[in-house]
Amino acid sequence: MKKPLILVTNDDGITAPGLRALISYMKEIGDVVVVAPDSPQSGKGHAITIDNTLFSTKLNVNKKKDASLEYSCSGTPADCVKLALQELLDRKPDICVSGINHGSNSSINVIYSGTMSAAIEAGIEGIPAIGFSLCDYSWEANFDPAEKAIKTIVKKALKNGIPKGVVLNVNIPKASKEELKGIKVCRQARANWKEKFDKRTSPAGRDYYWLTGEFELLDKGEDTDEWALANNYISVVPTQFDLTAHHAIQGLNEWGFN
Amino acid sequence: MKKPLILVTNDDGITAPGLRALISYMKEIGDVVVVAPDSPQSGKGHAITIDNTLFSTKLNVNKKKDASLEYSCSGTPADCVKLALQELLDRKPDICVSGINHGSNSSINVIYSGTMSAAIEAGIEGIPAIGFSLCDYSWEANFDPAEKAIKTIVKKALKNGIPKGVVLNVNIPKASKEELKGIKVCRQARANWKEKFDKRTSPAGRDYYWLTGEFELLDKGEDTDEWALANNYISVVPTQFDLTAHHAIQGLNEWGFN
Repeated sequence: MKKPLILVTNDDGITAPGLRALISYMKEIGDVVVVAPDSPQSGKGHAITIDNTLFSTKLNVNKKKDASLEYSCSGTPADCVKLALQELLDRKPDICVSGINHGSNSSINVIYSGTMSAAIEAGIEGIPAIGFSLCDYSWEANFDPAEKAIKTIVKKALKNGIPKGVVLNVNIPKASKEELKGIKVCRQARANWKEKFDKRTSPAGRDYYWLTGEFELLDKGEDTDEWALANNYISVVPTQFDLTAHHAIQGLNEWGFN
Repeated sequence: MKKPLILVTNDDGITAPGLRALISYMKEIGDVVVVAPDSPQSGKGHAITIDNTLFSTKLNVNKKKDASLEYSCSGTPADCVKLALQELLDRKPDICVSGINHGSNSSINVIYSGTMSAAIEAGIEGIPAIGFSLCDYSWEANFDPAEKAIKTIVKKALKNGIPKGVVLNVNIPKASKEELKGIKVCRQARANWKEKFDKRTSPAGRDYYWLTGEFELLDKGEDTDEWALANNYISVVPTQFDLTAHHAIQGLNEWGFN
């Protein structure tokens, strides 16, 4: 049987330890091609580069360990997927995996996430896609406890397919192998960020801000990704890019626009 | 009665004609505060600035015509809304309007849209929000045929409220006042972009790409925004930021993860 072709990308950049871990896991499942940003792209959401040029370099960051085909790209995660599919790959990948992100993309974070936008971009192009994130922002984070679950999810997605219009958002709690309780299919918890702008003054006397904030969970449901993660489960949220609030159409029709 | 406070933003930048048109329409409805990017931010999706500083300048681009409070911001559209709500406004706005974008944000374009991300950001913060886009990329586009409809939609939203978790994505066809047929509540059409990368070589001999593409409509429904626009209707799509594909949860539970 022909090995599946796996496109691997991320938003933390091509040298990120989370990407290197994902590459090593995927090499046990299929043929791997990496197209990842040449610099960190966290929080880039679904940005694409329309007013600037894109550079791409064929390279191998870690030749011995991951002897796979690798390209860096000067654009966003969504750019990487577009460039991979249209220019760099010689056939359509069987699956696209993005991550492993250094930090959570659960709940409302999915909106800001470059990791998930790469997966969503692949989904828009009709390719089964999964974003993986570990709830640990450290560059020294330990991805190994989730290795087995990540491989299980990818293998099952390759076998079952992922429904059309859906990509999977997988978040992994910061927990040891012993603490991990399993995988739970969830919905996105309702939450937002309570922003705090850290206002400072530049040496030249001009005020500026750093965006900071605190995550505010507004959802007490036990069927959410936040609940799962807080209870040491790996969360899998089926995520869609039809943003229509179908339930709101009828009510809006009663506004009597015309 | 106290006039409503209207936060106006966009993604084409604070000097864009579409923004100036929206400001002038909104000044007839309420008190206007503008917080808009200091440079074009098209295609920035829901990017936020977490690895750079944000500058904001109080200014008045067009003092005579729009004597409203205005701020430029060095960040993305989503940054503008966050900064407005947390730092620049002294009370919560009654509504946030974003646009008028120079170009369509219908169908899958909503995913890449800075205009809509600003509206969605306000929606996440619990503020009724609407993104407006005209299907005309020209800087000399004529926004006036839609003036009446834009005011109607904003007034109705102020009166009725917008359902929690929903923001409105309004797209306006390029049409004369006589050609415009009215307003239609729609769902997001299924579509994608068929990318074409324009590959060139720099003077220094390095290959680079420009992202270009063609819009590919994959949906024959007559209840979609694309159908409405093609038939000279203004489309209103209720848009949500709970991305959960609820219909896919049951099927995924049958994968037997654990």
